[in-house]
Amino acid sequence: MSFDKVAIIGLGLLGGSIGLATARYLPGVVTTGYDADPAVRARAAELGLAGTICASAADAVTDADLVILCVPVGAMGDAAIEIAGALRPGCVISDVGSSKQSVLAALNKALPGTTIIPAHPVAGTEHSGPDAGFASLFHSRWCIITPPEGTDSALVDALSAFWSALGAKVDVMSPRHHDLVLAVTSHLPHLIAYTIVGTASDLEEVTRSEVIKYSAGGFRDFTRIAASDPTMWRDVFLNNKEAVLQMLQRFTEDLTALQRAIRVGDGDTLFDHFTRTRAIRRSIIDEGQDDARPDFGRGDHED
Amino acid sequence: MSFDKVAIIGLGLLGGSIGLATARYLPGVVTTGYDADPAVRARAAELGLAGTICASAADAVTDADLVILCVPVGAMGDAAIEIAGALRPGCVISDVGSSKQSVLAALNKALPGTTIIPAHPVAGTEHSGPDAGFASLFHSRWCIITPPEGTDSALVDALSAFWSALGAKVDVMSPRHHDLVLAVTSHLPHLIAYTIVGTASDLEEVTRSEVIKYSAGGFRDFTRIAASDPTMWRDVFLNNKEAVLQMLQRFTEDLTALQRAIRVGDGDTLFDHFTRTRAIRRSIIDEGQDDARPDFGRGDHED
Repeated sequence: MSFDKVAIIGLGLLGGSIGLATARYLPGVVTTGYDADPAVRARAAELGLAGTICASAADAVTDADLVILCVPVGAMGDAAIEIAGALRPGCVISDVGSSKQSVLAALNKALPGTTIIPAHPVAGTEHSGPDAGFASLFHSRWCIITPPEGTDSALVDALSAFWSALGAKVDVMSPRHHDLVLAVTSHLPHLIAYTIVGTASDLEEVTRSEVIKYSAGGFRDFTRIAASDPTMWRDVFLNNKEAVLQMLQRFTEDLTALQRAIRVGDGDTLFDHFTRTRAIRRSIIDEGQDDARPDFGRGDHED
Repeated sequence: MSFDKVAIIGLGLLGGSIGLATARYLPGVVTTGYDADPAVRARAAELGLAGTICASAADAVTDADLVILCVPVGAMGDAAIEIAGALRPGCVISDVGSSKQSVLAALNKALPGTTIIPAHPVAGTEHSGPDAGFASLFHSRWCIITPPEGTDSALVDALSAFWSALGAKVDVMSPRHHDLVLAVTSHLPHLIAYTIVGTASDLEEVTRSEVIKYSAGGFRDFTRIAASDPTMWRDVFLNNKEAVLQMLQRFTEDLTALQRAIRVGDGDTLFDHFTRTRAIRRSIIDEGQDDARPDFGRGDHED
């Protein structure tokens, strides 16, 4: 089985990219789209982010056999309530949120008796909004599907096939394990980046202009992540609190150990640590999860 | 006045790039090069990183009117001692180290009575060694020159002109201020990146394979910086200890505040912080210090 009519609720970076990718790679699939912001709906219509842009969420999901909620994780419950009365029997509800236990709980509460299969494509950029989407966003990126126990495996397979068609590689795991994995691979890095960019902005002895001028020494890398959508990330931290705090505790312990090594002048500990961390970059490049060119292939290093 | 014969001691990423850039943009300038590692010297000769690759540091600096030490900051003193007897009168000694107070002290001690003008081009990639260099590395990047008080301004101007010719923008400041600025724009970001990559590698509940697969959620950005040269970075932290510890203290306070906001569910504090950090990215792009394309223009997002 496969999905013939897909409704996309929320037309930002992720929702827009799903619409564009479906049009390109699954041209037989009908898409409808809705966004709570009228300006985003108008822009989405201009850009053709879905086959039809609807005036209400209920209109968008009528007749859909797959609904994908692409709103901040804190807004999932309300978005589900809006469509609850309009779903056709057998419709599968999915999403793209960065935390999965909280989303599953919110959707279960709003849509009792409905088939809910949460998903998370691990892809994105620091840009947001309807203009940020593009059809190849999911190419070679992983999409994690977190079906609750007892979900019909044919439906899980159909959702996997949908994401594979969009170019993604698919993994299946429990919502709890997803939240732990993403806490370290995504949520903690974002928290650290947001923190250091704030720290650098607030100094007295070093001006903001100096921070900007000399950012090529490393700082600029963090500013990309710290430019991500504030609403989305507020919701992620509030909705994956336990796992984020757990990873943060580990990070703080490790940072304290390196801080101590610097204070006492323990060069061997620093050298050993810095040597060990080098290997993981090579693995990420070998697995096709990053650009092998120096400095991510930034334009200013073309030669 | 200008420099006609430039000796480059240390032929890794920075030294090699200086040699290649001088050949391209200052073809009338004669360059000599030396590296303590015979294998690096052999490779440097193959790659043409300097006009002549010499068998000793003393040979390389004979007749030079500018010597640039491109070795880890902890090795500056020993490198200076090696050339002490071979310098011609009036020769200017400079370097490319990432900490300036400690380098100035080490060079003053090893080369009393010599004109020493430390410098730091804020440029690089995560790669190191003789194969990592390229002629355009310094294009539009800042080079900070930190002359001690009383330095002949004509010599500072000549060094500025040399770096300008290589494509850099030049600033002059005190060694102390340099060390504070770089602690926040470069040293702290590297320490944080090295820490989080180590933390992610050491988890029990999340495998290293999972960390690698889902690294596109943010983590992979940190692995680039954490792949930088371990010897260079050990020396940076040992030689700019006070400023790094000062910045680290600020960072830890700010991280603790965000951690508390997550724990108590204070979404407004998170949202305000995340909104504030967005603006600085735009300034960095406007100042030409980073690539404006989403995700640094990584190849996998070409569409």
